[in-house]
Amino acid sequence: MNKLKLILFDVNETLLDLSPMEQRMNQAFENENAFKLWFYLMLQYAWVENSIGTYSNLGEVGKATMSMLNKQLGKSVTEQKQQELLRMIRSLKPHPDVKPALAQLKEAGFRLVSFTNSAQQVAEEQMRNAGLDEYLEEIMSVDLVQKYKPAPETYLKAINHLNASPEETLFIAAHGWDVAGAANAGLQTGFIDRPGQALYPLAPTPTYQGKTLLELASQLTTL
Amino acid sequence: MNKLKLILFDVNETLLDLSPMEQRMNQAFENENAFKLWFYLMLQYAWVENSIGTYSNLGEVGKATMSMLNKQLGKSVTEQKQQELLRMIRSLKPHPDVKPALAQLKEAGFRLVSFTNSAQQVAEEQMRNAGLDEYLEEIMSVDLVQKYKPAPETYLKAINHLNASPEETLFIAAHGWDVAGAANAGLQTGFIDRPGQALYPLAPTPTYQGKTLLELASQLTTL
Repeated sequence: MNKLKLILFDVNETLLDLSPMEQRMNQAFENENAFKLWFYLMLQYAWVENSIGTYSNLGEVGKATMSMLNKQLGKSVTEQKQQELLRMIRSLKPHPDVKPALAQLKEAGFRLVSFTNSAQQVAEEQMRNAGLDEYLEEIMSVDLVQKYKPAPETYLKAINHLNASPEETLFIAAHGWDVAGAANAGLQTGFIDRPGQALYPLAPTPTYQGKTLLELASQLTTL
Repeated sequence: MNKLKLILFDVNETLLDLSPMEQRMNQAFENENAFKLWFYLMLQYAWVENSIGTYSNLGEVGKATMSMLNKQLGKSVTEQKQQELLRMIRSLKPHPDVKPALAQLKEAGFRLVSFTNSAQQVAEEQMRNAGLDEYLEEIMSVDLVQKYKPAPETYLKAINHLNASPEETLFIAAHGWDVAGAANAGLQTGFIDRPGQALYPLAPTPTYQGKTLLELASQLTTL
């Protein structure tokens, strides 16, 4: 009955471990929540762009919001240091559960594709540096649509590009907003409940949930 | 040449001082950035709703995101305490510069209207409790449009309801995203550079800027 063929994965925090970047950024801004505040602010302004119908890629939004955070926290982290912190997003390691889970899912015959709000070039660099490219049929970015997830057209255009249908596609993320968006677009959804993450209480419950991608992979390969 | 007739004001942080709520929330969550993180998260999810085409009012989004923050920070602030903190938004005092500035602008003949992302009923309670209702021709909320600022239709519908045009309207806020949205909708804009606030570097420069509403009022009454 459940004819899942394609699995789309969010990247930042879902596949990749952002904690080294978090530590360095919290140190640089001398605030234990600096990274969280910046990441929240970057998402805010990505969605401000969605709301007003403009598009600057996530690297540009990330840079702009880091300089805003600098002012908002009353800090004076240099632009050079900010650039150095931003560059860290290109060379993150995957969470330990990710490679074995992708191997298991690929072995089980699923088509695997990454789909991120990061810019296309950054996304490719991220997957290559993390050694995840070999598991993936394609590395996709919202650059394709010039609009950020969770807008429905982002997921639908990616699926269309891959010649699949929403019903046969599962979208997996560690962010409440991303599973809410995918569900809204008619996809099946999986939530990885990584530390510091939470589902949006006003969105539908995801189809699958687990603490790690391995837990989700086990549920999916025993369907 | 500059035929300004109508001034729209954002409410939270622009007219009203949120610092008592910030202090109480930071205490309750034992984190000096708890309020900032929550406010950012509330805005994020308001714009997630914009992106996917749904609408829950800001009270509902605020409640949902406070429970998310509780989980994300690994805290166990009770639901009763969360409700108590949320209720504080209804009885905030205006910043000290606000009443004299509104009086000056009203005296100069401008039509003054508040326009907030808060729900209509909350907005009315906020203005009444702050003693600002007497300066305002109308108290407006995005409930009218069922979509959050900075989507262009929010500003345009408010202006249309007030029988004004974007060109004769000035929108004033202490948030970068709000002045970016108003400028995008074709309004003139004013930014109040309150502590902890910053303009979005990728948006156009506002028409007017000042540290307080009194500074902006002086610029406007000497036009």
